[in-house]
Amino acid sequence: MSTKSAVILLSGGLDSATTLAIAKDQGYDCYALTFQYGQRHACELEAARRVAKAFKVREHRLITIDLAAFGGSALTNPTLAVPTGRNDLSLEIPITYVPVRNTVFLSYALVWAEVLGLWDIFIGVNAVDYSGYPDCRPAFIAAFEKMANLAAAKAVQGQGTYHIHTPIIEMTKAQIIRRGVELGVDYALTHSCYDPDAEGRACGRCDACRFRLKGFAEAGLRDPVDYAGKL
Amino acid sequence: MSTKSAVILLSGGLDSATTLAIAKDQGYDCYALTFQYGQRHACELEAARRVAKAFKVREHRLITIDLAAFGGSALTNPTLAVPTGRNDLSLEIPITYVPVRNTVFLSYALVWAEVLGLWDIFIGVNAVDYSGYPDCRPAFIAAFEKMANLAAAKAVQGQGTYHIHTPIIEMTKAQIIRRGVELGVDYALTHSCYDPDAEGRACGRCDACRFRLKGFAEAGLRDPVDYAGKL
Repeated sequence: MSTKSAVILLSGGLDSATTLAIAKDQGYDCYALTFQYGQRHACELEAARRVAKAFKVREHRLITIDLAAFGGSALTNPTLAVPTGRNDLSLEIPITYVPVRNTVFLSYALVWAEVLGLWDIFIGVNAVDYSGYPDCRPAFIAAFEKMANLAAAKAVQGQGTYHIHTPIIEMTKAQIIRRGVELGVDYALTHSCYDPDAEGRACGRCDACRFRLKGFAEAGLRDPVDYAGKL
Repeated sequence: MSTKSAVILLSGGLDSATTLAIAKDQGYDCYALTFQYGQRHACELEAARRVAKAFKVREHRLITIDLAAFGGSALTNPTLAVPTGRNDLSLEIPITYVPVRNTVFLSYALVWAEVLGLWDIFIGVNAVDYSGYPDCRPAFIAAFEKMANLAAAKAVQGQGTYHIHTPIIEMTKAQIIRRGVELGVDYALTHSCYDPDAEGRACGRCDACRFRLKGFAEAGLRDPVDYAGKL
């Protein structure tokens, strides 16, 4: 029986599903945390529920936070268009960047970890095949971890040390997918698209779809999600 | 006319009211941010509204966040008693500690700062006459500031540097009160008590009341808030 436990940020996308599979494989009992943060669609949340169930997490909490109230991103503001067909996916920080999102998400994960008395937090950030978001890089994660150990009473009292685990941070998308398949991830349960249709089917054109499709192609596998015949 | 602007965390208590007065005195246009985080009473929020109005902030936002969902504090859990009459107020971290609260608050302030294009955040933490909360100490603030400059796209792109201002962090409560009085703070507008009565009047016995009363006594001033004749 597992004796160690972790809080894991679970968006319902490919990266966080694989991160959950890795945490389980490392023997962690998982407490999954998903945010309703004003995304334009609920497909991600449904995907998070499916993935959490498939991996039998100990508890799955959905937290509603109002990042949309502050604006500044195409992911939370319906008047901004999601970009498609950008030439260089890694050149600039795109309008789908949600200001300081991972800082807010990790802060909540730290609250839950401290209340539960856990010391491990998993987050599926990736700094290789990624969208240029600064809060996906190792330097940010290291700075957050250091801050966490100065912020939380249990750490300051010397009861333990918080670790932010980023098992896929240095992997290519193809490596992530291969590792997930090895660990039994059913990627049909996941959702990555920024701009799905009314039935929740992926567009195949936004950055998230393109990274995902490129990853499956490089892994020599077929993406099982429904692109509604658009590919 | 003021040309610089800042986001300021405003709880409605004595410390944040004084911090707002100092920021205004330094020439900042202020965007005040107040959290409804599952506190047991709404007096603090009313106080924040009064103080924001008195200091003519540019905008005052109230954000509801559900820290009570995670539990772990007497301030958000009605089944835990607020302690009174602790012998040494600085000896241990009390049950009124809300896990990682300032990390969450500062994360939201950073979101708003990045969206507004501002670089300055004020927080009225105090590491002298305080309740032993670890996230009020200079080491935590420095670590958060470093993390912020690695998290936010505008900082990473070199557009500027975030500064977390803590103007009262090294002051005694008496010094804070004297400075506030100099700057025209009407402390009758503020609320500090953890355990007010049904009319919102301060108890005079909890840690927050005791720190406050001790500060006024040391400053040689009378606290103008209503203690309902309990003193």
